[in-house]
Amino acid sequence: MSGKIEPRTLKGFRDTMPVEASARNRMFRTIEGVFESFGYAPIDTPALEYEEVLRGKGGDESDKQMFAFEDQGGRRVAMRFDLTVPLARFVAEHQADLAFPFRRYHIGPVWRGERPQKGRFREFYQCDADLIGAVGPSADAEILTMYAGVFGALEVDGFVIRVNDRRVLNGLLEAAGVPDRAATVLRAVDKLDKVGPEGVRTELAAAGVPDGAVAKALEFAGCAGRDDAETLARMEALVGGSEKGRDGIAGLRTTLALVRSAGVDPARLRVDPAITRGLDYYTGVVFEAALPSATGFGSMGGGGRYDDLASLYTNTKLPGVGCSVGLSRLLEALVEQGRVAAAATGRGVLVTHPEQGDASAAFALASAVRRAGFAVEVYPEPRKHATQMKFADRKGLRFALTVDASGAVHGKDLRASAAFDAPDAARAVDELSRRG
Amino acid sequence: MSGKIEPRTLKGFRDTMPVEASARNRMFRTIEGVFESFGYAPIDTPALEYEEVLRGKGGDESDKQMFAFEDQGGRRVAMRFDLTVPLARFVAEHQADLAFPFRRYHIGPVWRGERPQKGRFREFYQCDADLIGAVGPSADAEILTMYAGVFGALEVDGFVIRVNDRRVLNGLLEAAGVPDRAATVLRAVDKLDKVGPEGVRTELAAAGVPDGAVAKALEFAGCAGRDDAETLARMEALVGGSEKGRDGIAGLRTTLALVRSAGVDPARLRVDPAITRGLDYYTGVVFEAALPSATGFGSMGGGGRYDDLASLYTNTKLPGVGCSVGLSRLLEALVEQGRVAAAATGRGVLVTHPEQGDASAAFALASAVRRAGFAVEVYPEPRKHATQMKFADRKGLRFALTVDASGAVHGKDLRASAAFDAPDAARAVDELSRRG
Repeated sequence: MSGKIEPRTLKGFRDTMPVEASARNRMFRTIEGVFESFGYAPIDTPALEYEEVLRGKGGDESDKQMFAFEDQGGRRVAMRFDLTVPLARFVAEHQADLAFPFRRYHIGPVWRGERPQKGRFREFYQCDADLIGAVGPSADAEILTMYAGVFGALEVDGFVIRVNDRRVLNGLLEAAGVPDRAATVLRAVDKLDKVGPEGVRTELAAAGVPDGAVAKALEFAGCAGRDDAETLARMEALVGGSEKGRDGIAGLRTTLALVRSAGVDPARLRVDPAITRGLDYYTGVVFEAALPSATGFGSMGGGGRYDDLASLYTNTKLPGVGCSVGLSRLLEALVEQGRVAAAATGRGVLVTHPEQGDASAAFALASAVRRAGFAVEVYPEPRKHATQMKFADRKGLRFALTVDASGAVHGKDLRASAAFDAPDAARAVDELSRRG
Repeated sequence: MSGKIEPRTLKGFRDTMPVEASARNRMFRTIEGVFESFGYAPIDTPALEYEEVLRGKGGDESDKQMFAFEDQGGRRVAMRFDLTVPLARFVAEHQADLAFPFRRYHIGPVWRGERPQKGRFREFYQCDADLIGAVGPSADAEILTMYAGVFGALEVDGFVIRVNDRRVLNGLLEAAGVPDRAATVLRAVDKLDKVGPEGVRTELAAAGVPDGAVAKALEFAGCAGRDDAETLARMEALVGGSEKGRDGIAGLRTTLALVRSAGVDPARLRVDPAITRGLDYYTGVVFEAALPSATGFGSMGGGGRYDDLASLYTNTKLPGVGCSVGLSRLLEALVEQGRVAAAATGRGVLVTHPEQGDASAAFALASAVRRAGFAVEVYPEPRKHATQMKFADRKGLRFALTVDASGAVHGKDLRASAAFDAPDAARAVDELSRRG
């Protein structure tokens, strides 16, 4: 390797190999299909933005992790660290050209200079859908129905979407006399799963939240009953006379009824008072997807309602509700459930190249098989038959076909280890379609 | 806007609006479908690479235009300016894990700090497919067949792929006694379309290429006949006894015969001795796609054969052949041919929200229509019927449906301005399917 540049990727970055990239693309297409079936359209925004558009919008952590620099023209620029801040900028900039209520989805890479660790990368994809310019249970129910549709279409076995409404805990904290500590309490309760009630208690005591309010919040977070009716009844009892709290509970009831009217299996949705989502900007419904069967996978994404998306860039108030699919974890879960490898094979065909002479018949056969919906490669050089068959094995192709001088086709089903013959290309295609 | 940050994109960057993003995504899916039908698999590489991996690999111009900076860890990094240099790094890094011949495609954004001008952006998509680790006419023919397949699948009317082989002009220049000026001559001839023969002559005289060689090169570049047979015969006469030149012509003959065996319409492919492609690294077949009907569109992309992809990173010799689809121009051409707007509409449905009361029936109807393959949005708030219909118009939806208290559905075909009624959701779906 003397004089050569070492071929390597940056720390925290990685290449996506063919099998994984194929699986990921199939996942993207499925998700896009669901989003589009609800009238959501894709948008794209630049990887680079003015630094002032991004800085300070995701908190201290995001600022520290931002890839920011000066471009050739002396502008301070930065790579986007999420798709939400660019969406806010996009909607503020193009409001006159958009039809509201505005439904958009966006799947794309984002960049964060985090300390690399297992499962954490400095470049990763986000997948967001938002409905902007609408308030109320119908808008919330639409997002939840679509979110359940995504996991259903991906055939993720046993997913559950846990739903709550921030107004309920906020109302309860108002009633407990500490309305201004809501953000602190919400963030602490968000960690309940990880640190347990004692951990939450310790954190909130350190933050100076009165014991009584902490006890109330923990009682609330743990009040889930056997079913949604019981859970909602207990939430109602705890929230007492708070109007905000009662609004939240009424909102949840209406929203859930609409989601069920849309045909979502009730087992896929559960009211869970412990769900708060960490982010400050949610103001109403919040939800999180999980795979209870696969312990250790944690949240597969979530979302919620916000009062004002783009207040940093415009005076127009833009309330909305959105969801985000946790692609990396979802892909891991699908791999674990054996759904990725299966889809990758089954339609791959090798047409062998003659060891000598003309490849015209091989090219004609390949086209015929391709037209029948198979993925067909002609071995691109005249090599020994055994070499070509080894290549087909290594790639995990399903079939290998050889056309002889008479036009007859000799086939092998590599999965079944079975040979077959066909008198011509058309009948070889028939045979593959029968077996494929 | 006092105290607000101005919502704007960087000079040379732009947002992609929903209609355009939808059209682009459909184009991507079509192209990917063709690539995959030839056994090509996607890969992805990071947006950021070590600067040393990229610097100096695309010439002075690329170096100057590169977005390069120091990251948080003090590393010199840069954003990729094409997908070819990352491919070379990828193949060198992962050679042990790849099955050769290796077929990959890659669609993704690249970044170049060019002076922004009409139709030139600092962020744009490239779309490349390469077959690596194979030499000879079968490999070349595969790429050409697939390339024609891409334009065919996109239904680009009247495209032509112009094909040449660099060995022919190289052989001719050897015979003329100036083998070392081949790169200079090829680059000058590449501009023949733009600057004319006089322009080429002036450029080459200035570069010190002898008049005799320039005359030979121009005679060659202009020798196209009425059909490929005539063109090839003239090329053969001009190239004389040069072995390299004769190899190139023999290669073209075999390659074209194979492409035709694969069923590609002969009118879509033409031998054109004026095609050289500007890039230095091509060594054999070269080609370019054009739309002769749409003057001013220029090349829609092209490709060719190279001897050694990754010599900067590895001692393993990796010959290959590849193609690149000119996405932006192609999208423009498709818009001009009226193929983009048409595909965007036709399946969009609004289900109106009741002005008061419960939206359950609307949600149930929306799900039923969605299952039939339509893109359905329920208006997400209780608004006046007229407001909701205006929204459907603005979005260019095809149908609007309202479900009444009895469960009957009142529909409007917004394209045909025709009303219809159905006694229930199932029969409303039937009606849409009949009209859709």
